Amino acid sequence: MRQPQHEPMTGAPDRVTIYEVGARDGLQNEKSIVPVEVKAQFVRRMLAAGLETVEITSFVSPRWVPQLADAADLVTALGADALGTQRPVLVPNERGLDRALDLGVSSVAIFGSATETFASRNLNSTVLDQFTMFEPVAKRAKDEGLWLRAYVSMCFGDPWEGDVPIDQVVDVCARMMDLGADQLSLGDTIGVATPGHVGRLLAALAERGIGADRVAVHFHDTYGQALANSLEAIRLGVRTIDASAGGLGGCPYAKSATGNLATEDLVWALHGMGVSTGVDLEALVATSVWMAEQLGRPSPSRVVKALSGG
Amino acid sequence: MRQPQHEPMTGAPDRVTIYEVGARDGLQNEKSIVPVEVKAQFVRRMLAAGLETVEITSFVSPRWVPQLADAADLVTALGADALGTQRPVLVPNERGLDRALDLGVSSVAIFGSATETFASRNLNSTVLDQFTMFEPVAKRAKDEGLWLRAYVSMCFGDPWEGDVPIDQVVDVCARMMDLGADQLSLGDTIGVATPGHVGRLLAALAERGIGADRVAVHFHDTYGQALANSLEAIRLGVRTIDASAGGLGGCPYAKSATGNLATEDLVWALHGMGVSTGVDLEALVATSVWMAEQLGRPSPSRVVKALSGG
Repeated sequence: MRQPQHEPMTGAPDRVTIYEVGARDGLQNEKSIVPVEVKAQFVRRMLAAGLETVEITSFVSPRWVPQLADAADLVTALGADALGTQRPVLVPNERGLDRALDLGVSSVAIFGSATETFASRNLNSTVLDQFTMFEPVAKRAKDEGLWLRAYVSMCFGDPWEGDVPIDQVVDVCARMMDLGADQLSLGDTIGVATPGHVGRLLAALAERGIGADRVAVHFHDTYGQALANSLEAIRLGVRTIDASAGGLGGCPYAKSATGNLATEDLVWALHGMGVSTGVDLEALVATSVWMAEQLGRPSPSRVVKALSGG
Repeated sequence: MRQPQHEPMTGAPDRVTIYEVGARDGLQNEKSIVPVEVKAQFVRRMLAAGLETVEITSFVSPRWVPQLADAADLVTALGADALGTQRPVLVPNERGLDRALDLGVSSVAIFGSATETFASRNLNSTVLDQFTMFEPVAKRAKDEGLWLRAYVSMCFGDPWEGDVPIDQVVDVCARMMDLGADQLSLGDTIGVATPGHVGRLLAALAERGIGADRVAVHFHDTYGQALANSLEAIRLGVRTIDASAGGLGGCPYAKSATGNLATEDLVWALHGMGVSTGVDLEALVATSVWMAEQLGRPSPSRVVKALSGG
């Protein structure tokens, strides 16, 4: 299979960590409900393809996200493959954390909002009240010795509110990190960010003491900007990039159902630039082609299309 | 219509020139033959949307590219809109130049290859012999006072040969510029380039005396890298970016029919970064939606999809 021409980039890091969200952020936005055995095979194939950090699922209420009602079954089916600090699960609240702890997970993520409208619609809360909700989750997670990630969504734009001021985002991020999070993931939930915006938000966070070493970025490709924004974040010191195998997923609130940055498109860029990821591109493309068959529609990843002749 | 949040990027230029290739590179790769009146309207709408540099057509043999057999009719139909230094036409050989000169064009482009296989398949020549073919075209164009662009295709990879050594590309580019070209356009015809590769080629060209101010870049999005590569070129001093309204076109030799970098996706990034282009994004999206209707298939541009609810 074709590989990118190896032309190392001046100043690029030796390695970048891909935080794979396809099994959670990808599948939670699929219309169809994927059988738990298929999900388990998907995760196992991603691990076999060299992805090291794989978010497994979300212990969200099945009432809100029926696609992930099988969270406990999936963790059980995966056994040791679902455990360890590099296998986070999302826990929206204390009940979710209880379920995750019962299964022995050692890494969790909470999911907040930078905007009032999304806090209201997605969390049934306000920007201020969400911290009250997260506080006991974060405290217990840290007391139990878990690794904790804090997602902040709508960091670069909101579908209802339009522009989102950087100061507002920084305030929310700082409050989330004050809860004891080990890593912050800046979400461009509707895919509108541009590289200058990425740089300005990272600079503003650094001024508040949140350096790029504790930051991950999470771009959706709705406006075709996800790869450019991710590479800009890497240029500015970020070393963890969220991506989704095959570009699975999408934001249910945006009109067009484009998904996360496709892991394969990111891997193509990074390997070409001489940045290692641990990923076997051929095995990952085969995994995404197989998963697309399970879902009954082609992968939106351009690399997957190009390399599979799709 | 939604516009990108204005977050100027440190070090970005005030303005970038978009060299619009949709009417030529886009339509020459369409299966269907588009009526000349539709093409004329397409060009006029792009000009009205603020695109200033628009490649109109190619005076190639109708035997090879029947889609552009109407080149003379299109220039005639456009009248003054098709003339001037910012309305180049492609001329593959002396006969093409004759036809263009008869119509009063003042700006032409020649189209070479960095690799033997593409020179053989596309030009029925060799890398060395192509210069013999271009020499009289370039000489007459300069004698007549025309502005001259030199395209070099397969600069970053070749579908048959795989990797293409940078030295080989620089040799071809230097020979093309020695013919008297005012601008060099580096073509990633199959969309495989990555940002480190862009930087290394630009550095190698600068060492041979071809500075970024005389270079344009021309990326296809087959592997999802086109925007990231274009922004990297801008970061390194390039000020002219080739793009295609709606992402029209594609490389007939690549398996997947993805087109050029979509002008709208580029405009979204640049306007967000505070770089002006002169383009009215709403008018351009409307133009691409209209053109997609003429062609009977949706635009592959992610910005067009997102902003038109497609």
